[in-house]
Amino acid sequence: MYDGERIRELAGRCKADYTLPQAFYTDADVFAFDMAEVFTNSWLFVAFEAELPTPGCYLALTVGRNPIILVRGHDQAIRAFHNTCRHRGSQICADGRGRSPRLVCPYHHWTYALDGRLIGAARMPADFSLTEHFLNPVAVGCAGGCIYIAIGPDAPDFAPFGAAISTLLAPYRLTEAKLAHESTLVEKANWKLVMENARECYHCASAHPELARSFPVTIHPNFTFDAEEPGASFAERMDGLGLAHLPLEGGWWHGARYPLNPGMESISMDGKPVVGRRLIDIPATGIGGVRWAAEPNSFCHALPDYCFTFSAIPVRPEETLVISKWFVHRDAVEGVDYDVDGLTETWTRTNLQDRSLAENNQRGVNGYGYTPGPYSWDAEDFVIRFARWYRAQLRMRLPEGSISGC
Amino acid sequence: MYDGERIRELAGRCKADYTLPQAFYTDADVFAFDMAEVFTNSWLFVAFEAELPTPGCYLALTVGRNPIILVRGHDQAIRAFHNTCRHRGSQICADGRGRSPRLVCPYHHWTYALDGRLIGAARMPADFSLTEHFLNPVAVGCAGGCIYIAIGPDAPDFAPFGAAISTLLAPYRLTEAKLAHESTLVEKANWKLVMENARECYHCASAHPELARSFPVTIHPNFTFDAEEPGASFAERMDGLGLAHLPLEGGWWHGARYPLNPGMESISMDGKPVVGRRLIDIPATGIGGVRWAAEPNSFCHALPDYCFTFSAIPVRPEETLVISKWFVHRDAVEGVDYDVDGLTETWTRTNLQDRSLAENNQRGVNGYGYTPGPYSWDAEDFVIRFARWYRAQLRMRLPEGSISGC
Amino acid sequence: MYDGERIRELAGRCKADYTLPQAFYTDADVFAFDMAEVFTNSWLFVAFEAELPTPGCYLALTVGRNPIILVRGHDQAIRAFHNTCRHRGSQICADGRGRSPRLVCPYHHWTYALDGRLIGAARMPADFSLTEHFLNPVAVGCAGGCIYIAIGPDAPDFAPFGAAISTLLAPYRLTEAKLAHESTLVEKANWKLVMENARECYHCASAHPELARSFPVTIHPNFTFDAEEPGASFAERMDGLGLAHLPLEGGWWHGARYPLNPGMESISMDGKPVVGRRLIDIPATGIGGVRWAAEPNSFCHALPDYCFTFSAIPVRPEETLVISKWFVHRDAVEGVDYDVDGLTETWTRTNLQDRSLAENNQRGVNGYGYTPGPYSWDAEDFVIRFARWYRAQLRMRLPEGSISGC
Repeated sequence: MYDGERIRELAGRCKADYTLPQAFYTDADVFAFDMAEVFTNSWLFVAFEAELPTPGCYLALTVGRNPIILVRGHDQAIRAFHNTCRHRGSQICADGRGRSPRLVCPYHHWTYALDGRLIGAARMPADFSLTEHFLNPVAVGCAGGCIYIAIGPDAPDFAPFGAAISTLLAPYRLTEAKLAHESTLVEKANWKLVMENARECYHCASAHPELARSFPVTIHPNFTFDAEEPGASFAERMDGLGLAHLPLEGGWWHGARYPLNPGMESISMDGKPVVGRRLIDIPATGIGGVRWAAEPNSFCHALPDYCFTFSAIPVRPEETLVISKWFVHRDAVEGVDYDVDGLTETWTRTNLQDRSLAENNQRGVNGYGYTPGPYSWDAEDFVIRFARWYRAQLRMRLPEGSISGC
Repeated sequence: MYDGERIRELAGRCKADYTLPQAFYTDADVFAFDMAEVFTNSWLFVAFEAELPTPGCYLALTVGRNPIILVRGHDQAIRAFHNTCRHRGSQICADGRGRSPRLVCPYHHWTYALDGRLIGAARMPADFSLTEHFLNPVAVGCAGGCIYIAIGPDAPDFAPFGAAISTLLAPYRLTEAKLAHESTLVEKANWKLVMENARECYHCASAHPELARSFPVTIHPNFTFDAEEPGASFAERMDGLGLAHLPLEGGWWHGARYPLNPGMESISMDGKPVVGRRLIDIPATGIGGVRWAAEPNSFCHALPDYCFTFSAIPVRPEETLVISKWFVHRDAVEGVDYDVDGLTETWTRTNLQDRSLAENNQRGVNGYGYTPGPYSWDAEDFVIRFARWYRAQLRMRLPEGSISGC
Repeated sequence: MYDGERIRELAGRCKADYTLPQAFYTDADVFAFDMAEVFTNSWLFVAFEAELPTPGCYLALTVGRNPIILVRGHDQAIRAFHNTCRHRGSQICADGRGRSPRLVCPYHHWTYALDGRLIGAARMPADFSLTEHFLNPVAVGCAGGCIYIAIGPDAPDFAPFGAAISTLLAPYRLTEAKLAHESTLVEKANWKLVMENARECYHCASAHPELARSFPVTIHPNFTFDAEEPGASFAERMDGLGLAHLPLEGGWWHGARYPLNPGMESISMDGKPVVGRRLIDIPATGIGGVRWAAEPNSFCHALPDYCFTFSAIPVRPEETLVISKWFVHRDAVEGVDYDVDGLTETWTRTNLQDRSLAENNQRGVNGYGYTPGPYSWDAEDFVIRFARWYRAQLRMRLPEGSISGC
C-alpha cells in the first residue's frame, strides 16, 4: 500500500540526469511503490538452469517479501510459483534447495504436483474445487542457461533480451555449469544506491584496486570502442573467432563482450584463470569477458573460466541484500581445479568495497543538506540510463496521467 | 492513530469463510486499529486470582503498549489500573510482582492508595485537586478463579462468560492454585495468524505428535459429540459424576469439557498425571479436561492435575508474544509432587511447533502470490468463528456505516 | 515528510501547563515534524571551539540523520557544512575528528576547500560549473568558546544568547579547554521526555543522591534567589568578585550562576575539585557554577575545574542519543591533574539514573491510560517553559493559521 498521489508529487521534482530527490532513497511510500510496481513487473535474475539439474529439483527463495519456488518438472520444464499454499497461505517449501516428487504444505498437508496443480486437500467439503486452488504461477524467462522471473503480470517482453544473451553466452555452455559458491551481503542502503553504484566504474580505479588489475576500469561505460586501441583491435579479433561482442541493448538491459586489461585472462587477483577447467568451449586466449545486466537489479560477468552473478534484493527503504554467485564448469573439481577462496576473492573484495560506498552514500543522502547532483556523461552513462529507466517506471506505473519533470 | 477509511476499504474485500486479505496480517494501519479498537475493548485473560493472595499484592504487566497493574485491595477486591502516573505519565510499578501498602511513582513520589486514590503529591499548588488525579481504572472480570481485564470502555458483557466458566471450573478450586511456571515466546507473526493456528487442530496430528498422544486431535473442533463413541458415553458418565460438560458459548467465547484419548488422565508426554497433588476435588478418573477460550487472544485447559493458560499479546504487525502459564494446587510441592520440566514439556513442545507454523504462515502470507483461501468446515470451525468475530469487530468498531463483503 | 493537518489537529488538543498529548511523545508524523521544522531551525550545541585547534581540523558528526562537518579554515574561522557531496550525495568525511588541507569525497574524489568551495571534479563536462556545487553551508554561532549550529534557514537570532553566555563564561577561558571525555547513551525515550526530565530537579533529591551532595537540588528551578540565604549572600559575594550571576534569558535559552551546597567547590562525589588545574582564571572559592541551556536539546555546567555539556539527539520517536562531554583546562594532565573516572562519575551516574526515568516515563506515556498531567509551578518551572516553547514552535512552524488550545 502506498500513496500514489504523494509519489507523483515527488516524481515531479525529478531532474533529468541528476540524482533523484531524497525521498526516492529513503521514503517508505516510495519503497512500497518500488516493490509493488517496479520490482514486481521486472525480470529478476534468480538462478542458472543448471542449479535444477533433474525433475523434482527445486530452489525456494524469498525475493523481498515474496516467497518463490523454482522447480523442474517431469517434462524438464522449469516453472516458478508463489511458494504460498492456497489454503491458509503458509510458505510451502522452506527457503533452500531440495528434490521432491511433489510439493506438500507442512501445515495441513495440501499437496501440489510439480506443475502447480493441487492434487490433495484433506477434510475439505465435497464441492471443494481442486482446480480453483492451483499454485499461483510466476513468469519464467530462460536464456543462455540463466533463469529470470517476473513476479507480477506486467513485465516487459523477455524475448529480445533472451535472444541477445543466448547469442553472447552460447559458447559458455552455462547449462553445464555448477554453483561453486554463493554469498549474501546485507547493505544498509536503498536498492537504487546499490544499483547506481553497480552501474558505473567512475569509482573503480581508487575504490577497487584488486578489480582494477584485470578489469578495464576506464573502459567507456557503454562498452563501446572507438577507433583506437585496445577496443578496435579486440573487436576485430573477436570477429575472427566468431565470438559475438557488439553491445546489444534494450530499454532495461545491456550485454557486450569487453577486453580485459592487456595480458589478463580472467577477473582475478593476478589476472590468471582461477579455475583449471574452462567454462567456454574454445581454447583462445585474450577473449575478455561478457557482461550482461538487466534493470532493476542484476549484472553478470562470464569469464573463460567462471561466471559471476550479482543481484540486489531490497528489504527495507535503507536495506538491501546483495546475492552473489560463482559458477564453474560442472566437471571442475574443488580442491583440484579451483579453490573457493581463489575463485571468489576479487569479487568479494569488490562487493565489500561497494557496500561501504553505498552505505556511505545513504548516510550522505539522508541529510537536510542533500541536493540532487549531476551525473557525469563521460563516466556515469549507465547510471544515467538506470535513472531514466526508473523515471520511466514512475511515468508508466503511477496510476494517473503524466508527471512533469521526469 | 489509523486511517479508518482505508481499513473500511480493506474490510470490503473480506470474503466469508476465507482467510483475510493480506493487509489484515501485515499492515500497520490495520494493526493500529486492532490495538486501539479490538484488543482494547475485549476481555483479556491476564492472571489467576490466586496470583494475588493477600491485600497489597500486585502484578504489573504490559499488554501491548499498555502498562497495567492488578492489585488486591484491603477489602480483598481485585482491581486493575493503568500503571501510569497522573502527573507526568511515568510507569509507576515496574513490570513484575510485588506487595506494597500503597503505589508510589518513583519519579516524583506521587502516592496512590490500593484503590487508585491519589493520596500524596508534593510541591503542587494549594488548589491542586487530588480527587481529579486518581489512577485511571481498567475493568476487571473475575470468574472461576481467573482474572480478565478490558482496557477500554466498550467491552462486551462479561457476565454470561463468567457464569459459564464458573460452572465448568467450580470443581477445580482454581482460587487455591499457585503459579508453577510461566514462559514468554516471541513469535514473528501477526496475532491473527497466531490465533487462527490456536483455534484449530487440523494440523495437530502431524505437527504435534506429543500433544496428540493424550489430546483427542480429531475431536470435532466444536467439542460436540454425536451419538457414537467416545463422546456420547463420556457425556453420560460426566453427567453421572455431576461434572458440567456441555459446550457453553457466546459470540466471543466457548467452554466445554472433553474426553482425553482412551486411558489418558492428563495432557502429558505419556498421558499420566504430572502433579501428585490434584487440583480437582474429586477422585474420579477418565474425566478429561475443560477447555475455555475467549476472543481475541486466549485459551486455557484445566486437567485434573494442572491448568494451562495461553494468551497472545500483539507487539507489532508481524510480532506477537505468547504467554503461557502452568498452575498447580498450592499445596503441591515442587520436587516432590511435580517437577517443572515434566509439568511443562508437552505444551512447551506444542508452543514451539505452533510458533514455527505461525511464522511460516506469515512468510507465505507476505507474498504477492498470497490469495485468501477457504477454511475447512469440518476441521476449522473455530477458525471460522474467529474470523467471523473479527469481521464483526470491523463492522462494529469502524466509525461509519456498513461494510460490504464482511 | 509529515502530515501537517494531522499535527495541527493534535496540537489543538494541547492544554497549557499540562504534559503534551500522547502522540507528541510517540507518533512518527510528529517526530518527522520535530526533526524537519523544530530541530532544524534551532541552535544545537555541538562542540567547543577548542576541539578544532588549528586550520584544517574538523569534526564530523551526525545530528539525527544530518551528517555535518565543522572545520576550522585557514583564516581561523570555524565553519560548518552539510557533510554531503554535491555530486552523488555521499558522506564526505567519516564521523569523527581529523585534520586535512581539503575535503575529498572518497567516492569519486570531488574535492572541496576548507571554506566549502568545490575545487576539483574529474570527468565532468566542460560546461560544468564548480561554483554551483559548493558544499551546502550550515549556520554557526560561536560564543564563550562554544559552537552552536543551525541546520536550517530559520533559526532565531543567536546574538542575544551569544552575548549572554560570553558574559557568564568569560572567566572560564573555554577557548583554552580540552575535551577530556565524551560519552553517548542510547535512551529508549522520546527526545521531549529526555528534555523534560533534564529541565527539572523535582526528581533530583530522591533520584540523584550523588548529584544532590554538591548540587543544590532544591534551588528555585529558575535559579533566582529571594532575600533569604544562601542565594542572596551568594549574589552579593559574586558581585564583589565581579562574577556575573543574574539569570539571563530569552524565549529559548537561559543562563545563570548558582551556588553549590555549602562548602562544595565542584559537582563531584564529595564536592571537592576533580581537576588539579582550574579552568577559571580566579582563585576564589565558593563561586558555585554557571549553568546555561538552550532549547531544544542542551544544558551545560561550568564549574571552577571542569565543564560538562549535555545534548540530546533524537533518533526515532522513542529513541534519543544523549551526548555528554567533559572539558578541562588544556594544561591539565590526565593521571596527574585528573583521572577520567573521578572527573566523570557524578554526571555519569546522574545520566544513567535519568535514562531510567525517561525510559520509564516513555513506557507509562505509551499506554491507553495516559492522560496529560499538570506541571508543578513550584518545582517544574523550566519544564513549563520548555512546553511553552514547544507549543510556540507548533504555532509558528505548522504551515497554516492558528491552533486553538496551544
